[in-house]
Amino acid sequence: MPETTAPTIVVVGGVAGGMSAATRLRRLSAAAKIIVLERGEHVSFANCGLPYYVGGLIADREALLLQTPESLAARFDLDVRTRAEVVGVDAAQRTVTVRSADGTEYHQAYDHLVLSPGARPFVPPLPGAERALTLRDVTDVDRLAAATTQASTAVVVGGGFIGLELAENLVRRGVSVTIVELAPQVLPPLDPEMAAPVVDELRAHGVQVETGRQVSRLTPTTAVLDDGREIPADVVIMAIGVRPETALAASAGVTIGPRGGILVDDDLRTDVPGIYAVGDAAEKRDGLTGDQTLVPLANLANRHGRHVADVILGEGGIARTVRRGALGTAAVGVFDLTVAATGANEKRLRAAGRPCRVIHTHPSNHAGYYPGAEGMSIKLLVDPDTDEILGAQAVGGAGVDKRIDVLATAISAGVRASALADLELAYAPQFGSAKDPVNMLGYVADNLRSGRTRSVQWHELDAVLAGGGQLVDVRTPGEFAAGAIPGAVNIPLDELRARAHEITATDVVVHCQVGQRGHTAARLLAEITDAEVRNLDGGYRTWLAGRTATSTP
Amino acid sequence: MPETTAPTIVVVGGVAGGMSAATRLRRLSAAAKIIVLERGEHVSFANCGLPYYVGGLIADREALLLQTPESLAARFDLDVRTRAEVVGVDAAQRTVTVRSADGTEYHQAYDHLVLSPGARPFVPPLPGAERALTLRDVTDVDRLAAATTQASTAVVVGGGFIGLELAENLVRRGVSVTIVELAPQVLPPLDPEMAAPVVDELRAHGVQVETGRQVSRLTPTTAVLDDGREIPADVVIMAIGVRPETALAASAGVTIGPRGGILVDDDLRTDVPGIYAVGDAAEKRDGLTGDQTLVPLANLANRHGRHVADVILGEGGIARTVRRGALGTAAVGVFDLTVAATGANEKRLRAAGRPCRVIHTHPSNHAGYYPGAEGMSIKLLVDPDTDEILGAQAVGGAGVDKRIDVLATAISAGVRASALADLELAYAPQFGSAKDPVNMLGYVADNLRSGRTRSVQWHELDAVLAGGGQLVDVRTPGEFAAGAIPGAVNIPLDELRARAHEITATDVVVHCQVGQRGHTAARLLAEITDAEVRNLDGGYRTWLAGRTATSTP
Ligand SMILES: Cc1cc2nc3c(=O)[nH]c(=O)nc-3n(C[C@H](O)[C@H](O)[C@H](O)COP(=O)(O)OP(=O)(O)OC[C@H]3O[C@@H](n4cnc5c(N)ncnc54)[C@H](O)[C@@H]3O)c2cc1C
Ligand SMILES: Cc1cc2nc3c(=O)[nH]c(=O)nc-3n(C[C@H](O)[C@H](O)[C@H](O)COP(=O)(O)OP(=O)(O)OC[C@H]3O[C@@H](n4cnc5c(N)ncnc54)[C@H](O)[C@@H]3O)c2cc1C
Ligand SMILES: CC(C)(COP(=O)(O)OP(=O)(O)OC[C@H]1O[C@@H](n2cnc3c(N)ncnc32)[C@H](O)[C@@H]1OP(=O)(O)O)[C@@H](O)C(=O)NCCC(=O)NCCS
Ligand SMILES: CC(C)(COP(=O)(O)OP(=O)(O)OC[C@H]1O[C@@H](n2cnc3c(N)ncnc32)[C@H](O)[C@@H]1OP(=O)(O)O)[C@@H](O)C(=O)NCCC(=O)NCCS
Repeated sequence: MPETTAPTIVVVGGVAGGMSAATRLRRLSAAAKIIVLERGEHVSFANCGLPYYVGGLIADREALLLQTPESLAARFDLDVRTRAEVVGVDAAQRTVTVRSADGTEYHQAYDHLVLSPGARPFVPPLPGAERALTLRDVTDVDRLAAATTQASTAVVVGGGFIGLELAENLVRRGVSVTIVELAPQVLPPLDPEMAAPVVDELRAHGVQVETGRQVSRLTPTTAVLDDGREIPADVVIMAIGVRPETALAASAGVTIGPRGGILVDDDLRTDVPGIYAVGDAAEKRDGLTGDQTLVPLANLANRHGRHVADVILGEGGIARTVRRGALGTAAVGVFDLTVAATGANEKRLRAAGRPCRVIHTHPSNHAGYYPGAEGMSIKLLVDPDTDEILGAQAVGGAGVDKRIDVLATAISAGVRASALADLELAYAPQFGSAKDPVNMLGYVADNLRSGRTRSVQWHELDAVLAGGGQLVDVRTPGEFAAGAIPGAVNIPLDELRARAHEITATDVVVHCQVGQRGHTAARLLAEITDAEVRNLDGGYRTWLAGRTATSTP
Repeated sequence: MPETTAPTIVVVGGVAGGMSAATRLRRLSAAAKIIVLERGEHVSFANCGLPYYVGGLIADREALLLQTPESLAARFDLDVRTRAEVVGVDAAQRTVTVRSADGTEYHQAYDHLVLSPGARPFVPPLPGAERALTLRDVTDVDRLAAATTQASTAVVVGGGFIGLELAENLVRRGVSVTIVELAPQVLPPLDPEMAAPVVDELRAHGVQVETGRQVSRLTPTTAVLDDGREIPADVVIMAIGVRPETALAASAGVTIGPRGGILVDDDLRTDVPGIYAVGDAAEKRDGLTGDQTLVPLANLANRHGRHVADVILGEGGIARTVRRGALGTAAVGVFDLTVAATGANEKRLRAAGRPCRVIHTHPSNHAGYYPGAEGMSIKLLVDPDTDEILGAQAVGGAGVDKRIDVLATAISAGVRASALADLELAYAPQFGSAKDPVNMLGYVADNLRSGRTRSVQWHELDAVLAGGGQLVDVRTPGEFAAGAIPGAVNIPLDELRARAHEITATDVVVHCQVGQRGHTAARLLAEITDAEVRNLDGGYRTWLAGRTATSTP
């Protein structure tokens, strides 16, 4: 590959990963010939905004188009060709075959080929599936927006991030929506007890949620569930996940990884010389396990787009002092709820046989004495041997995204769970607490690490009670009366010292509303009785969420 | 010190540091005798909420009192004595002398003595200063609230965090407020160009701001400035900083540190056996320089309160994987602005002769295509040799506190500036951008680190131009017409390639509105011309803020 003159770099796919690569390439070299080939009609559009255009929250369609071929030519001297599908790669000759809108084909030579073809929504082969819509690009959204204006009912198949965003936005349009999700919960990145409030939020806004259910076929006006029920559906949208676009790569002889994405090394090289891949089409390495994984998210697509440019033009790349690999940090708004997560969840860790310590808290986003505090629930997963943070999930109001971003940063940097107590976070009453929720997770983790407190999880409680354990609810009589765990005796925390003789079992679980008073109670009883005392992690609130999540509606 | 029986632990000061120590001590030992001695009338109150009670935003005075002696006795079996001032310490005998409300004194023995006496507002010895009020505790706030109901004018002396909070809350009460600040800027933790928008915000809400001015005396109805002007002032409040309460410690023979606070080691021990100190009264070690410093903030007071309990009761303390020492992370709301900072500022680094790389950006809190994005300005300080993050400041709307918390976490964990690019932060259009502002700081830092871009600071520009440098404004003609830097020629970025021949100097500075287009322009010109090209860091926006900050009004 003699690069005596400036290299020709061909980029396949002109959105997040591809266009980030192209612009960075240009900033590194004014001379390089940079050609972006995009099969669709638009480049550089805001995929992540599409659902909000459906809902009308983003009213101006132009707002979705961040750049055009013309603006990219003017600013970056990029040769951007839309309706230009790459249908073949000759890796030996270093050419691609491009099919134009009019069906004609031509060859384009390259020195370096960057694949960022993304991923496409999976549509299961159901009877009637032809009429189902999907949402990936601007053409899709035009179709969906048009269909929505005439629809009064919709079925969204899939309760993941995009499915939930679509449900919210269809409701915004006055459409009556049913979500059908095969899994027993919505939002698979969350564990079930964390997803429970999300279902409540959806239902509170009139969305029907059918979990543990499948659509078996579509009629022209309904979706038929596997239990035979027919749900009215003027519109059906498939949002059950995406599959990496790998056909082109495979045809070029590039190895496809175990998860079905293009296999790349840490510098985004495929195993075919001169060919690189980034974005949703490429597999990532999991930041915690090192396993191959798929993370179809924009942060990584953009970052890898820039990185591949550095690799191609021989720049050193960035000094890496943070953990390599993907965490899958993600957020989604669901009506008035914010949901965010990073790293592994408990389901995945258990499936992998990896032990984990679990912490649930229910803090407020800022000091309670300042008006307007909003609640949230956080779950932290910790390696019991190393105190390493393995993952975090949060659901609630304002401030959820902040805590997950801080925790994602801590994971990337290898901060141990107990050391979260030592983070010095900005505190004024509007923004946090003197002990921020993240610090508090550190305190709780420290107590578990040192063995000062032991905890019981919501799903372990039944077994403890069946084995003769005593459950002590240390909340106030008012709280107890408003709803209690069957079998609990109520001894308010402030009476516990005086009434310690009522502790009769040797195996005792204490609990309060969220875990905090329970912690003080557990410490006290451990000191003044001979019982083995544990605190119900996350208190009544987590227990209730867990029960909601696991009970069939 | 034979501790055959449970130890007696005396805590002086019953608020943030002191009470956090006491409650944690109890959780570690049911048997310890724990006595909290508080000279004031209240314990466990929310100091940080006091200004908002003045403004009526916190309407219920009880909301400020998080705990009472009674509640602490019931829950934690603490012996909390209010109106109990510790007036002497006999470190050899291990007793303190306590003066009760009725003036009688008694001795109280201790095994361990924790000092958390806080700091008191400094009141300069001005003529008339007797009538000035200060704000530290609930008694102060009652006095201030009473005075405010009859006031129509107020002078707040001091433009720090508490002074600004007070100004806002007095305005909320309909009082006409003047802030008098000796320094040339408000909010000393910020650098001047970052503080400029804060002054704009204050003035937009009707607050008079007199920087570079001193109050020389108070009359019964006015405050007289050093330039002779008399400012009407029914109420005068001194908020020019606090001094550690060290008299008691000094009388016990404890060494006072170079910054005037109680000297402690990393485990909060003073140099007198059995005596510990935490909170505002104690000096901290600066997390970046290792120097002694004072950081009168609640996060550290609470954290150190818990830590000292662990030290006293022989617990291992927490596994430390984050940087020790204080960063001084802080936030404040100023009307509709949020201001937050962590680590060192440029003023301090320059004063210490420490070289630093400076980065200014002006991102939005979330994707621009999603409605409601709010702007912010961020400043990042980086060690040019090691790429270490030395400090950060941010001013703007929603999301400021999040970015500073992420950056504070990164500093604590030793994440290098360039590696901010690699943080995987939660992105959905409501919460961030595919390249979050923190990631973008990493990109900019990476470009400076690798030498791919060089930048000029706002205050360096005049010298460059005086030396024959050419200034190229790459914004649109419309932006240029709306306000430009004297001497700039306007060549819009998209025309730069075609008009490169207009670049005549060998020393060229390009600039845009915020630095981003300037970066692309600088890269392009560096490639296609022979000139030495630099980008004006932070663009027109930072230049203007700097000029505002340094021009005398
Ligand atoms: C509705 C929706 C909401 C989303 N919300 C979020 C969110 O909130 N947060 C988040 O992080 N991520 C979100 N994402 C995911 C995010 O958009 C993707 O991770 C990101 O766009 C991936 O970038 P990419 O470059 O890999 O692929 P894409 O952005 O999909 O671009 C791939 C492009 O390649 C083109 N192409 C494919 N094959 C060929 C070919 N053979 N020849 C020429 N062109 C080809 C395609 O037409 C496509 O335009 C969302 C995605 C969607 C669809
Ligand atoms: C108006 C205001 C707003 C603030 N806002 C913020 C904010 O937004 N964010 C933030 O992080 N920090 C803020 N702070 C600072 C924060 O409140 C302090 O950092 C924190 O309270 C320090 O805790 P401490 O235990 O050291 O001292 P304090 O909380 O001040 O407690 C010390 C106590 O010791 C008592 N005492 C002193 N000497 C004796 C003695 N000899 N005998 C008996 N008792 C004694 C005092 O009466 C006092 O009650 C604010 C402070 C004020 C006053
Ligand atoms: C926008 C897009 C064309 C990329 O353009 P880009 O110019 O590379 O990216 P940005 O506009 O974010 O600018 C980033 C550059 O500006 C620089 N920059 C940003 N702020 C700066 C500042 N204040 N001062 C100096 N430089 C700055 C960065 O360092 C970076 O340059 P580098 O890569 O050379 O380091 C491409 O990402 C795209 O098409 N995105 C739309 C699709 C998408 O992302 N979808 C998923 C999410 S909805
Ligand atoms: C409130 C105050 C009395 C301290 O009480 P405290 O019980 O130690 O503190 P908190 O109520 O914050 O609870 C923290 C404890 O609950 C535990 N906890 C919190 N949430 C928990 C949960 N969900 N599950 C289990 N434990 C939890 C923590 O681990 C910690 O216990 P530990 O120290 O034994 O590890 C004291 O800080 C104070 O007086 N504050 C008011 C003054 C002040 O802070 N002013 C400045 C800011 S305005």
